[in-house]
Amino acid sequence: MIAPTQLPVRTVSDLGERALVERITARLAMPSWVVVGPGDDAAVIEPERGTLEVLTTDVQVEGVHFDRRFVPPDAIGHRALAVNLSDLAAMGATPRAVLLSLVLPDALDVTIVDGMLDGLLSLAAAHNVVVVGGNISRSPGPMMVDVTAIGAVRPRRVLTRGGARPGDGVYVTGTVGDASVGLQSLQTARGPAPHACQQRYLRPQPRVRAGMLLGRNRAASACVDTSDGLADAVRRIAEASQVGLALDASALPIGDEVRRWHDAQGSGAIDAALGGGDDYELLFTVRPAHQGRLRDVRRRLDGLPVTKIGMVTKERQLFIRTEAGQRRLPAGFDHFR
Amino acid sequence: MIAPTQLPVRTVSDLGERALVERITARLAMPSWVVVGPGDDAAVIEPERGTLEVLTTDVQVEGVHFDRRFVPPDAIGHRALAVNLSDLAAMGATPRAVLLSLVLPDALDVTIVDGMLDGLLSLAAAHNVVVVGGNISRSPGPMMVDVTAIGAVRPRRVLTRGGARPGDGVYVTGTVGDASVGLQSLQTARGPAPHACQQRYLRPQPRVRAGMLLGRNRAASACVDTSDGLADAVRRIAEASQVGLALDASALPIGDEVRRWHDAQGSGAIDAALGGGDDYELLFTVRPAHQGRLRDVRRRLDGLPVTKIGMVTKERQLFIRTEAGQRRLPAGFDHFR
Repeated sequence: MIAPTQLPVRTVSDLGERALVERITARLAMPSWVVVGPGDDAAVIEPERGTLEVLTTDVQVEGVHFDRRFVPPDAIGHRALAVNLSDLAAMGATPRAVLLSLVLPDALDVTIVDGMLDGLLSLAAAHNVVVVGGNISRSPGPMMVDVTAIGAVRPRRVLTRGGARPGDGVYVTGTVGDASVGLQSLQTARGPAPHACQQRYLRPQPRVRAGMLLGRNRAASACVDTSDGLADAVRRIAEASQVGLALDASALPIGDEVRRWHDAQGSGAIDAALGGGDDYELLFTVRPAHQGRLRDVRRRLDGLPVTKIGMVTKERQLFIRTEAGQRRLPAGFDHFR
Repeated sequence: MIAPTQLPVRTVSDLGERALVERITARLAMPSWVVVGPGDDAAVIEPERGTLEVLTTDVQVEGVHFDRRFVPPDAIGHRALAVNLSDLAAMGATPRAVLLSLVLPDALDVTIVDGMLDGLLSLAAAHNVVVVGGNISRSPGPMMVDVTAIGAVRPRRVLTRGGARPGDGVYVTGTVGDASVGLQSLQTARGPAPHACQQRYLRPQPRVRAGMLLGRNRAASACVDTSDGLADAVRRIAEASQVGLALDASALPIGDEVRRWHDAQGSGAIDAALGGGDDYELLFTVRPAHQGRLRDVRRRLDGLPVTKIGMVTKERQLFIRTEAGQRRLPAGFDHFR
């Protein structure tokens, strides 16, 4: 017979708010620059001397950003942090701290919260990021993980979207179109699973080091992450910098698994790479005179590819050159359309 | 005849994400310490020299924290910011910036978003707080307004929950139990409406100035806000400071409207004031030797009452003394129970 106190706790509401907060905070370790950590009305941290504060927030909503049928709990937590670290990376910032706002259904299994934290804390540890505070609320509907990330950057090293000039080269880190293939294959479960692409969708690696290096030696004139796809990222740099961009389709870094998957589906890899989101690579521009700086960054990237995919143009239009000729870029993804 | 482009835009999904973001950012003005405002991957701000960063996050979820049948849009926005400013106040911090994470149903009327912003921006202006960034996502269920607030405090002026010592006096700002009467009267619509109490529920005034003054001259030894009720706040100081607290029921600052409402309902005003949440007053403790500092704070509070309601005790228990004798404090509110 099991005594009442030994009955297994199953749901968030079985456990209750206080016990849930304690269960989470028990897993957190605070470095010396955290003056007041979780458990008070707010967190207090020491800023890094001589730096600016970089702030971003992004949420993962069940049924919108993730589907629990094929996104395991650790991937929910990993993604919730990764999308925010990617935003900091695109500013050239070093991530330091995060706040975690959880909105959880009563009936949610506590093991899902535990698993979500496994993923989030594992990525946080990899980037020396500390969860300094947060909040837990009830949800009458979907599970939500809203993260605010705080980073630091030296004043002259901030990367924005607005610094591109005609003649700059256009570059992207890593490969593009992977996450979108991963997501589609998880959704449809058709054909052989493209494992690496699925991993890219489930556990994207934010390009924190690349962003820091590009900011540190001021190699990049503009930078943005590709969270909503390559075409969207291109458009954002063009708008903020008031320039045009021309991409070269044959230069796009599209991996073999992505090409094979699109061949099997009869879909076009180029369009998918332009339109597909969730890659979390960095798209950036480099002045012709700063090739030496870019070489320096490349040397320190431990094998992460950096590919030149086009040029910044004076004429304010967005083109891609393919074997069939030059055409306009497709419009970006809109979360409400 | 109305041309298609002049058709009135009704819902969030009619408008689309980009237009919605532009509609919001068009209303924001940036001071000089905001290096990069909304519209890039992240916001960049200059820290205030010689201060620590204070960070907090709190969400308002439709159906949990507000009911749109009786909470007007401006009050949703006001409350979303107020609960966060209250947390900063409880640390003695000066609020500076906020990030706004909106999770909105497709079918939500855009006028509700506009009204919500009216309330939020009006309170922000009153406290010199700037919306420096944020995010908008779709919700498959309830509307959610998640706010992260960033404040500044000088190192020796941080107020925590952990500094109370036996012999300290226990104080509370304003009056208690008002918001809970306001909420109940809005929910039940019974009897004559207690207008001031409803206002306290809908548009609470975070005690930012009181918190800053209590920190600045170090009048308070511990401080917490009463977001989850007075009993909960007392318990949190007791736990963090490892002390007990004894309250005097006759001293509780309970307003006439609150007493009348409870008399009419046949409910007890004392218990309701202890258990009822949403007041967002500050509960704090003061060393006997620091009465002069407290007098100084009081003089600068422009009429906001500060009432002594009890004492910190060595014996680690929570009591309230009433005419009927001494009894234990009721347990705090748990959002999941």
